[in-house]
Amino acid sequence: MKELVEAVRAHGIGIGTDIVKVDMFLNHRMDTELYVKIGQAFAAEFAQKKPDLVLTVEASGIAGALTTAIACGNIPVVFAKKSRTRNVTGDVYESRVFSFTHGVENHIRVAKQYLPEGSKVLIVDDFLANGEAAEGLCELCRQAGAEVIGIGVCVEKSFQPGHQKLVDAGYHVHALAKVLGIEDGKLIVED
Amino acid sequence: MKELVEAVRAHGIGIGTDIVKVDMFLNHRMDTELYVKIGQAFAAEFAQKKPDLVLTVEASGIAGALTTAIACGNIPVVFAKKSRTRNVTGDVYESRVFSFTHGVENHIRVAKQYLPEGSKVLIVDDFLANGEAAEGLCELCRQAGAEVIGIGVCVEKSFQPGHQKLVDAGYHVHALAKVLGIEDGKLIVED
Repeated sequence: MKELVEAVRAHGIGIGTDIVKVDMFLNHRMDTELYVKIGQAFAAEFAQKKPDLVLTVEASGIAGALTTAIACGNIPVVFAKKSRTRNVTGDVYESRVFSFTHGVENHIRVAKQYLPEGSKVLIVDDFLANGEAAEGLCELCRQAGAEVIGIGVCVEKSFQPGHQKLVDAGYHVHALAKVLGIEDGKLIVED
Repeated sequence: MKELVEAVRAHGIGIGTDIVKVDMFLNHRMDTELYVKIGQAFAAEFAQKKPDLVLTVEASGIAGALTTAIACGNIPVVFAKKSRTRNVTGDVYESRVFSFTHGVENHIRVAKQYLPEGSKVLIVDDFLANGEAAEGLCELCRQAGAEVIGIGVCVEKSFQPGHQKLVDAGYHVHALAKVLGIEDGKLIVED
């Protein structure tokens, strides 16, 4: 997506060999107009598969999930909640997600009633790197007996294995901007 | 706001004397159409004060902040991040927020560069109870030398002191649905 590629080039920051900072427009300060276009781009890619809901994980996935759900005709959004602890009651689907960024293991969970069996789910997230969050969301859908009709990510770190892992597992993955690498603090972004 | 009042009446759940659950449409599963109308309602109340940005706190404040920012003409959203630990670098504004819900003290923070001195800030959050989160966001603005032009909350627990504390401090507070109390698990919602 042209506007997102341009934003990553203009305002994205590379740190070391693998940290991509896009908090000027994507996940701390949020460029609203850009997010509306992100939603339209995901709807153009996935709406013909008729998703029943958009699933994401708090916190920075919520904005893209919401604009996508609006562009898909006001379908609901469900966001999985993160926790450092396991849930002890039986009313949630839950999976483990290791965060490379923070070096910790989180549990993500969704109340069972909000992820109905048989529903067609579009997963949206702001970032795809090692694919842990997306795999965790797919695992919640597997537990629920829901179908993942696609995975949309705003920015992908294509030099990390997440994209390929998800494609190998049979998912339809669509990234709107692909960071190919970092050179001297500058992000190399695919055209 | 009629639609939100109706949603709280139809799907909100009261637990004990003071817990209000609205996660069916507001802060776990999110009713997208309702959130678009929430944004329009906040814009109708506050847009004439010409906010430069909408400030909220992760995670469940983000959706309302985004639709409000869209309805205000695509101004940016900045969301404060929660942390259990104090920041040790000097590049953020930070305040302490005690969460009654979880019984813990959080720190919320915003990168200084995203909350410019002199900016006119509209604060939006999903909930107002004791007012801790809103006060914390106001404190970030005070540190930044930014002006809070208003505080919009989706659902207010009017039987708790947050609203009055913020009004007494001179803020323009607007709640779209007011829960007056809980009787036998049912929410009493103002017309």
